[in-house]
Amino acid sequence: MKHTPVKIDSTDSHALATASLENLYRIFTVPEAPNSTLGAIDKEISDNLMGFLTDRIVARERSLKAIEADFSDSDIPEVPQFVSDYTEFVLDKLVAQSVHTAAPGFIGHMATPLPHFMLPLSRIMVALNQNLVKIETSKAFTPLERQVLGMLHGLVYERNADFYADNLHNSRRALGSFCSGGTTANITALWVARNQMFRPDGDFQGLAREGIANAMLHAGYRKLAIVVSERGHYSLSKAADVLGIGRNNVISVPTDARSKIDLKALRATCARLQSEQVGIVSIVGIAGATETGQVDPLTEMAAIAADVGAHFHVDAAWGGPTLMSDTYKPILKGIELADSVTIDAHKQLYVPMGAGMVVFKDPQALGAVEHHAEYILRAGSKDLGQYSMEGSRPGMAMLVHAAFHIIGRKGYEIIIDQNVEKAKAFARMIDAHSDFELITDPELNILNYRYAPAAVQSRLASASSAEQMVINDVLDRANKRIQKQQRAAGKTFVSRTRFSQHRYGGQPVSVFRVVMANPMTTLETLRTILNEQCDLAQRDGTRAILSELDALA
Amino acid sequence: MKHTPVKIDSTDSHALATASLENLYRIFTVPEAPNSTLGAIDKEISDNLMGFLTDRIVARERSLKAIEADFSDSDIPEVPQFVSDYTEFVLDKLVAQSVHTAAPGFIGHMATPLPHFMLPLSRIMVALNQNLVKIETSKAFTPLERQVLGMLHGLVYERNADFYADNLHNSRRALGSFCSGGTTANITALWVARNQMFRPDGDFQGLAREGIANAMLHAGYRKLAIVVSERGHYSLSKAADVLGIGRNNVISVPTDARSKIDLKALRATCARLQSEQVGIVSIVGIAGATETGQVDPLTEMAAIAADVGAHFHVDAAWGGPTLMSDTYKPILKGIELADSVTIDAHKQLYVPMGAGMVVFKDPQALGAVEHHAEYILRAGSKDLGQYSMEGSRPGMAMLVHAAFHIIGRKGYEIIIDQNVEKAKAFARMIDAHSDFELITDPELNILNYRYAPAAVQSRLASASSAEQMVINDVLDRANKRIQKQQRAAGKTFVSRTRFSQHRYGGQPVSVFRVVMANPMTTLETLRTILNEQCDLAQRDGTRAILSELDALA
Repeated sequence: MKHTPVKIDSTDSHALATASLENLYRIFTVPEAPNSTLGAIDKEISDNLMGFLTDRIVARERSLKAIEADFSDSDIPEVPQFVSDYTEFVLDKLVAQSVHTAAPGFIGHMATPLPHFMLPLSRIMVALNQNLVKIETSKAFTPLERQVLGMLHGLVYERNADFYADNLHNSRRALGSFCSGGTTANITALWVARNQMFRPDGDFQGLAREGIANAMLHAGYRKLAIVVSERGHYSLSKAADVLGIGRNNVISVPTDARSKIDLKALRATCARLQSEQVGIVSIVGIAGATETGQVDPLTEMAAIAADVGAHFHVDAAWGGPTLMSDTYKPILKGIELADSVTIDAHKQLYVPMGAGMVVFKDPQALGAVEHHAEYILRAGSKDLGQYSMEGSRPGMAMLVHAAFHIIGRKGYEIIIDQNVEKAKAFARMIDAHSDFELITDPELNILNYRYAPAAVQSRLASASSAEQMVINDVLDRANKRIQKQQRAAGKTFVSRTRFSQHRYGGQPVSVFRVVMANPMTTLETLRTILNEQCDLAQRDGTRAILSELDALA
Repeated sequence: MKHTPVKIDSTDSHALATASLENLYRIFTVPEAPNSTLGAIDKEISDNLMGFLTDRIVARERSLKAIEADFSDSDIPEVPQFVSDYTEFVLDKLVAQSVHTAAPGFIGHMATPLPHFMLPLSRIMVALNQNLVKIETSKAFTPLERQVLGMLHGLVYERNADFYADNLHNSRRALGSFCSGGTTANITALWVARNQMFRPDGDFQGLAREGIANAMLHAGYRKLAIVVSERGHYSLSKAADVLGIGRNNVISVPTDARSKIDLKALRATCARLQSEQVGIVSIVGIAGATETGQVDPLTEMAAIAADVGAHFHVDAAWGGPTLMSDTYKPILKGIELADSVTIDAHKQLYVPMGAGMVVFKDPQALGAVEHHAEYILRAGSKDLGQYSMEGSRPGMAMLVHAAFHIIGRKGYEIIIDQNVEKAKAFARMIDAHSDFELITDPELNILNYRYAPAAVQSRLASASSAEQMVINDVLDRANKRIQKQQRAAGKTFVSRTRFSQHRYGGQPVSVFRVVMANPMTTLETLRTILNEQCDLAQRDGTRAILSELDALA
């Protein structure tokens, strides 16, 4: 790790070594000197983001326990610290022990590298420190956010120019809600769905006012349910808890061999729920499953939702931006029939962490969760806080606006196409390798595979279900070990997950998970990752696990 | 407004004027040239944050309609735009039309100015792009966030060193939850309170799993309620909606002449609810009311909550940092008895927008909302996402960590003391001015007042209740007009709100609201604000309103 901060304690303009009113003014008015430790780091990042990350993050993993020791003081420091000293701490203890999420060989998570222009634009956003909850503290940021939500709405629903002219800046309408992330977006969508299901009716003032219990009593439901395939994101279960529906009432529908929701099972599930007086709050389709990347048959799901009178939500947190690719957009066909769609900007829109969105087909849908206060959000105002679960919020929409303009639809198309094609190329590479088993052939840019020596694959093919279970257990442990060791070595990273496999009679199996979203990842990078896994498989610990298979033979 | 961007279209390294794979690589690898438009702006902010804000934000208000016109295209641009062109748009249309929340004369909102060191540190945070949902994408940021929550817990609960050694980094415990803001923090607190109230019991699997309706049936409640004074923040009503409790079931308790909850009324309310088989999910105390800044009698409220067996939450989003002042800390006495406490870092901790926190007295409380998934958040892991309502989240905790170290407890004490003292000085200034009526004498650093000419104040003093209502209506309209015109002029800003006044028999009255949190605000600034308001009161429109009073006489 490079370590060349210029420490200038004696003149460090922000030092508060003795806290005094005068010094405190200075932290608000005097900038970091360019030759100060923090000033130098600031320049280093500005000049070369990837260089900073590669040089300053220590690749090899330190134990979490050792890292925790550096963050174990539970007292707020009494005396102010020199900025230069604090910056050195940050470099040595925080930056060095962070995760290089932008490294081309780190293809196991949904964190993407950032375009360089995001850094100075983020500085403008932070410097302005606007609060999007109300116009009073955001002004132009409010129309900007409404525009960004409108653009996303247009991407999904493709309504005509008149529609957007009518709705984009209409204070009585909202095309979506900007959130801190996809989980909040999903909760918002289901919150709207739940409240729309129980609107005011005669003496009943609606669920928003009276609560769930009264609402169910009023409508004669025994339970409420959210219906989604077994590949649904865990945020849906969290939403069911938060919204008072209950985690047990997220009804999981089996998937077919391609990890897509089984439509017959979905129909049967809905029929059963209705016969049991269970109110279906929402059917949720997945467009880019977190674990496997698959897209549900959205058109057919929309028809089923319409049949049973349920809200149809699509969780496209990951896959949504695929709509910008003319080639792969057809995979998401039917998304335009959804009542609401979640798309994360901090995933495939290459925006920094903290930007999720949900758009609604009906610009009046968010009225179901509208709220007002005396000092802000007055009825009829354009304050965005009327329609958001969060209150005070930063101006992250600016960075989405920037990406839409600077990358453009065509730019995104190139990036997305390339990611999907790289995922398919990697799948062929895995398939061609005798010691790996391809588990999920990528539909978009996520895939699963596992280490399974050729001989073991042959045995599995002809084994009984009971034998398969024993063999898969051994492979699970071997693959877990390989994944952990690869992560600890710090050069490359794939994640792992576990889900049931049609080919093994529904047995759950531990697999590697690859998310192809870094434009800097090359086929060479992918070859290196496979080679490293083969090498790790030859280490004593993993060999010992695999040798259990010989004893079984 | 200065306008000196250096536009270098032909060499602008990030230009994607024709989208190509090669150009797309460049946005990830080639930094902004220092002499590019964006590079120059970046330097301008780094060199002089206040100068940038003052020079680049146009003071005088443009109509929202005119601003909206600049953000009215609903299509994602097809072709990439030059970064320099986009930056000019940002400067002209977004920055120029933002709100100068850091201006010393803008004392009407809770947005605070930022210490200079926040800018380069924010860049480090953005550059690292960590995702705090799990260790896999955050590593050192996870222990750092746990430490920050521990420090805040220590500030509130002052447990001993052993307690923090046991709990700070214990994967089965969580001292709090880091959120995007105070609203999410309040919802999280009440989510925990609701779920803890209905734990698994025999065949009943708990509210989290079974939902509210079953839980109420199991416990024999007719309704659930959240009890808070009439000064409670609107986020509590939002929480009641989200959590399925219902907005009607936020039971509002009257306040006394000082805007503090009426304890006798609170006791009576709780007794009534219990007799009506209403389950009290939480009693909520306020430490720094959004509108008036007052602090409820927390010790007594804690005792009442204990008596009725309800969770006691304190919303100290604004007032919490007062605990760092030895002088004013006693005002928050009793906060250490709360089961949970919300404190916003983007308010009086001077951290950029997007940082709220909630801490829990019991380190096992968050277990009531714990959740797991196969690919992350596995049981026993240290992933913070197990205990948060949000999923993917940025590393904002780093900026709180930085502020705690660089400003220090003593630094905060000086800032806070000075803010409170300035508020008190302003109150005396208002009181001494014959044409203003002080409405809320500041307990902390928020106060309310209104324009009311001396003669009108005398008339009010001797008027009947019906006459007061008529006079107050006239004053309401005059004050609204003054506030709007002051805001439009853009030199200074106070906000306005409306709440019932003991002195006028509970009549609601529109008042100015002042939040004293900018260290650069001086007594001279405050004098200017009053003078401007007097001048505005002399304008024809306001005089016409006030002249209605002569007709009444």
